[in-house]
Amino acid sequence: MKKIILPALILIASQIADAQEYAIQSPHGIVSVNFSLNKKGQASYQGFYKTKKFIEPSGMGFELKESYGLKKLPDMKSNFLLSSVDSFLVNETWDPVWGEVKTIRNNYRQYIFHLTEKDDLQRKLNIIFRVFDDGIGFRYEFPYQPNLTAFIVANELSEFHLTGNHKAFWIPGDFDTNEFQPVTSSLSEVDATFGKDVNEIAFKWGIDANTVQTPLMMKSNDGLYINIHEAALVNYPAMNLTINKDNFNLSSTLVPDAYGNKAYLLSPAKTPWRTIVVSDKATDILASKIILNLNEPSKIKNTSWIKPMKFVGVWWAMHVGTATWDYAGTQDASNVKDLKPSGRHGATTKNVKRYIDFAAKNKIDGVLVEGWNTGWEDWFGKWKENVFDFITPYPDFDVKEINRYAASKNVKMIMHHETSAAVSSYERQMDTAYRFMKRFGYPAVKTGYVGRIIPRGEHHDGQWMINHYIRIAEKTASYNIMVDMHEPVRPTGLHRTYPNWLACEAARGNEFNAWSKGNNPDHETILPFTRLMGGPMDYTPGIFEIKMSKYDSKKTEQVHTTLAKQLALYVTMYSPLQMAADLPENYEAHMDAFQFIKDVAVDWDDTKILNAEPGDYITIARKAKGKNDWFIGSITDENRREISINFDFLDKGKKYTAIIYADGDNADWKNNPMVYNISKQTVTSLSMVNLKLAPGGGCAISLKRID
Amino acid sequence: MKKIILPALILIASQIADAQEYAIQSPHGIVSVNFSLNKKGQASYQGFYKTKKFIEPSGMGFELKESYGLKKLPDMKSNFLLSSVDSFLVNETWDPVWGEVKTIRNNYRQYIFHLTEKDDLQRKLNIIFRVFDDGIGFRYEFPYQPNLTAFIVANELSEFHLTGNHKAFWIPGDFDTNEFQPVTSSLSEVDATFGKDVNEIAFKWGIDANTVQTPLMMKSNDGLYINIHEAALVNYPAMNLTINKDNFNLSSTLVPDAYGNKAYLLSPAKTPWRTIVVSDKATDILASKIILNLNEPSKIKNTSWIKPMKFVGVWWAMHVGTATWDYAGTQDASNVKDLKPSGRHGATTKNVKRYIDFAAKNKIDGVLVEGWNTGWEDWFGKWKENVFDFITPYPDFDVKEINRYAASKNVKMIMHHETSAAVSSYERQMDTAYRFMKRFGYPAVKTGYVGRIIPRGEHHDGQWMINHYIRIAEKTASYNIMVDMHEPVRPTGLHRTYPNWLACEAARGNEFNAWSKGNNPDHETILPFTRLMGGPMDYTPGIFEIKMSKYDSKKTEQVHTTLAKQLALYVTMYSPLQMAADLPENYEAHMDAFQFIKDVAVDWDDTKILNAEPGDYITIARKAKGKNDWFIGSITDENRREISINFDFLDKGKKYTAIIYADGDNADWKNNPMVYNISKQTVTSLSMVNLKLAPGGGCAISLKRID
Repeated sequence: MKKIILPALILIASQIADAQEYAIQSPHGIVSVNFSLNKKGQASYQGFYKTKKFIEPSGMGFELKESYGLKKLPDMKSNFLLSSVDSFLVNETWDPVWGEVKTIRNNYRQYIFHLTEKDDLQRKLNIIFRVFDDGIGFRYEFPYQPNLTAFIVANELSEFHLTGNHKAFWIPGDFDTNEFQPVTSSLSEVDATFGKDVNEIAFKWGIDANTVQTPLMMKSNDGLYINIHEAALVNYPAMNLTINKDNFNLSSTLVPDAYGNKAYLLSPAKTPWRTIVVSDKATDILASKIILNLNEPSKIKNTSWIKPMKFVGVWWAMHVGTATWDYAGTQDASNVKDLKPSGRHGATTKNVKRYIDFAAKNKIDGVLVEGWNTGWEDWFGKWKENVFDFITPYPDFDVKEINRYAASKNVKMIMHHETSAAVSSYERQMDTAYRFMKRFGYPAVKTGYVGRIIPRGEHHDGQWMINHYIRIAEKTASYNIMVDMHEPVRPTGLHRTYPNWLACEAARGNEFNAWSKGNNPDHETILPFTRLMGGPMDYTPGIFEIKMSKYDSKKTEQVHTTLAKQLALYVTMYSPLQMAADLPENYEAHMDAFQFIKDVAVDWDDTKILNAEPGDYITIARKAKGKNDWFIGSITDENRREISINFDFLDKGKKYTAIIYADGDNADWKNNPMVYNISKQTVTSLSMVNLKLAPGGGCAISLKRID
Repeated sequence: MKKIILPALILIASQIADAQEYAIQSPHGIVSVNFSLNKKGQASYQGFYKTKKFIEPSGMGFELKESYGLKKLPDMKSNFLLSSVDSFLVNETWDPVWGEVKTIRNNYRQYIFHLTEKDDLQRKLNIIFRVFDDGIGFRYEFPYQPNLTAFIVANELSEFHLTGNHKAFWIPGDFDTNEFQPVTSSLSEVDATFGKDVNEIAFKWGIDANTVQTPLMMKSNDGLYINIHEAALVNYPAMNLTINKDNFNLSSTLVPDAYGNKAYLLSPAKTPWRTIVVSDKATDILASKIILNLNEPSKIKNTSWIKPMKFVGVWWAMHVGTATWDYAGTQDASNVKDLKPSGRHGATTKNVKRYIDFAAKNKIDGVLVEGWNTGWEDWFGKWKENVFDFITPYPDFDVKEINRYAASKNVKMIMHHETSAAVSSYERQMDTAYRFMKRFGYPAVKTGYVGRIIPRGEHHDGQWMINHYIRIAEKTASYNIMVDMHEPVRPTGLHRTYPNWLACEAARGNEFNAWSKGNNPDHETILPFTRLMGGPMDYTPGIFEIKMSKYDSKKTEQVHTTLAKQLALYVTMYSPLQMAADLPENYEAHMDAFQFIKDVAVDWDDTKILNAEPGDYITIARKAKGKNDWFIGSITDENRREISINFDFLDKGKKYTAIIYADGDNADWKNNPMVYNISKQTVTSLSMVNLKLAPGGGCAISLKRID
């Protein structure tokens, strides 16, 4: 890291006696922050993008308790003196183990404000700003100090005071889930109470009408795109944002534990970074690397065993109802001891071999199998421990034979560990479970946290669970196991630090389309601006059989998509772990379209956000890792749209064979979702192509360089 | 087991239309219970000892919630119909793996009342009574039923309605600790608020002024001794008792979790047994085996590795301040990474070898070492995880060499696992820690739970922790490891089921005398009637150097005892695990008195409670397992007392050499505690001996048969 110590600090304003204000400019002067300490010793900051203010003066600080939580400590929110200021400029690059680009530039100016209380305790608090050309990050540090060793954060008082009634893309604040349909409304129109009413989510704990989750995407009336989230969420709860509808000041609402306490800290301690990405172009938001840059480098030294991959799985069949997770199909605890097979169990040796054969034949790296282990008869909604032991297969799942067969076909098996949110049980079993995986050749695990958390009193997004997820990332890493978490907290860029933590669900996935009102056609045009800001999502795209009536004539559910859009998602929804989620037989009926899924990469040397508008459309081009091939995905919301693609990102003077997977004529997500056209043409860096996206549709393009 | 199905049930009263009452008599008619269902379908019971009523009509039932705890279910406390009644008589014997007697008689009459709600849900509840000649046990069973599968006990409504304002021996109700000085008062005078004020206990959670813990010992004005406790506390929280001072009705107050919920159950489920031991003789209370009989037989099949034992340890030195648990003596987390030895660390290889030598020389089976592992610099009062890892010794503790040395001397090492109440951390480490123990030859572990429990929201005595303690008993058993728990819930006879669970602390031990106001001289005359009703206590008797001024002239603390009384405790305070708690050098100064500790057994073929009055005195004779030797202990409270012992329990026609370890002339716990007289005489079954016990004194006798 290059550090340049600035020669001097510039005090820009001290109109008010004793008040101090510091201006911090981003490396190219595009973004700036004014940090100030008023005469009461209260800290605040403002944010500017070029000439526009995007953060009004916003408060900072904490309410604290002593370490046993039995009494309050004095607040740390005023009465501060500025002891000293450190600053430096960083301009460096680093290469992620996997990612959207080969090399990431990290260029920011940092200021550390060392504050000390004037009063008897004289406690110390550092506030650190990093100002980038596309946004800011700030965090708090509690240095080690005798007057503040072990303590509890009762509340964090960080504010994000917005300049107006922005358009927002939000989901309800919650302590346990993020699997909500996003809503688009002005801030003043936010009504998050619907979060309490959604019955389709296994466990939720809504907060109030005015509280929403991050990443919160907004657009101001004067054209600024603003995204608030956090980075490096470690040993701290997740942050929700509570909207003051009178002045559009958003304040931090941390996820509590059983006692309403937020974080148990020992100095030296630091909070996650609070991030605000800002630009006048929506595409810059998607291209921003602020959140990754604010995370620590990989803690895993040898990363050679970490491999992005595509996979199929015994999974969608359970969602569409043609198979069951459980062996007996009883959902009755009293029968668990004497299980009789129902004949509908998905995870049979025979069926799994069928998936292995399909994967081997079609260049799909892995096979996930859910419902392989005992416990599924009585796993749901009981808030109980010891449901699963993670080492006992059902009688019809021959783990040894499957391991042998998959290895013979060079297919990687992906283990499934549903914890039913009984995390205390899982933690007791972790080593045993991972040893079992290594013994039977599983290089990756998908974990799940469906239900109400045990330890009772903890929440999915609280500090104890945050530490659990990281414990899983570290423990799996120690076994050279890759991990994909379902129902965890939404990510904050920790995949930089733990690159074996390939993906998370942590949002409303494609599965909801199978058995609920589903996801609106604009869902995937919003997710990259919200959930994906923190990290890859295991969204499970690739559904070809779009209407559930195919499986059961009484069903009216459907995926809110065209078939071509499902292909485009492999590019627009970045993940190093991409499922081809549909049933093999559905792919076999459309092998021409499936060719795109076979071809598309899962790791990239470059990414171009060609166009984007949250809630409307996204077009992204990506260059496959170590290859000259590009893949393009373009999607729209419920509206028909024409997109013009300029291929100027291609190598000059080279020709490319483009295969275009487009919506068919008259395609429409609701009435005619499965028609598509596949065409081939040759393009160069001088080419322009116009794409017609159907309502709820999309387009995927593969580009192979002709050498 | 012999079951005798009784031919018919006798309806003894139905004065009120529809009300039903059943009388259940103990095998010899000494105790009886009347169970009734009134016309509202409410269940209640009364208890009689001979002609005296000791329990007035007392309610039964539950308040419930659904399994996620989000809403109430209808109460189960009225509207019951009696579907059927089963009854039988049991008269059997069984031999404990270790204990106070070789063979235990289990003789009771059982009634099961099968209740069904009249209303729509028609839920079922069984109430089971077992009536013994020395008391009663009752429990509830929830049979498996579709209308009540997974559910939460919000409150148990069991009552114990006493007949008057009895004299009670009580400690404050609490969710986390039982380390209180017992108080003797009438029920109406109970004021348990002092529990909130006691600073000397690491973590406590007092309930209210009127709530006390079990075992609750009482004496009625008309001479009945009554003890209320519970047996087989499994998958359920501990019970406190809340006193209605108007009518002396005691009601169950279960220990809650973070949400105030008491127990998460899945039908079929059963509660612990609620026990009432009753007699007109105090000695019968101490001799009662009801609580053991109400527990399940051993779940451990091969018990050959389970060995009662005496031990010394690197422990008391830390209490008296001549050594420290921690290596650096800093108690400062920030220094943990760069530890410098203070020179006062107790658990050094050299010092441990000194204890091993002392044990080997004096027929002491084992050596406990506390402070051997890293973490003690910053272990206390922080409510944090990951303090200890249980496998990393301090640099001056050579675990391999100590293992070799102890084995060469045939001394058993006892491992110490202080969890600092971070139970979630310990559970993650259990297997690793026990494998480490096996590798280094440790057959037993002392666990500790000092502090506030993590998972936060749980309490030491709540359902989750109850299950944890049992998990420890089972897990240690799977490694053939014996366990001694400190700071757990008070025991309920589970050592019958898990005989490797040798002892618990779970009360105010001798250690308090070293650094607090200590334990009153009557403390050990109360404990056998209260705490020890549930199982053995690791009280750590045997302190010879009684005044702490010996170690530091400024100290005024002392053990409230004479030296001879410390010897007597090895007999009066039953445990299969007895520490010789003082420093080797203090024993070496009194080897004549130490001879009793060398000789006394820790496992017994027979026990005679020769006399006893709670709070005043206890005299017990025990016959060593497989030998003809007897040992007698006699102790008094703060009052001087003369005790006459009749030796008629000795084998007729045999002579015994009695060595009598008595208080010296003018001995007195306060002013002259360390004087003692040792005398020898020959006795037979016709002998009588008068003992003079000093204030706070006692007497110990060993009897060796002359063959």
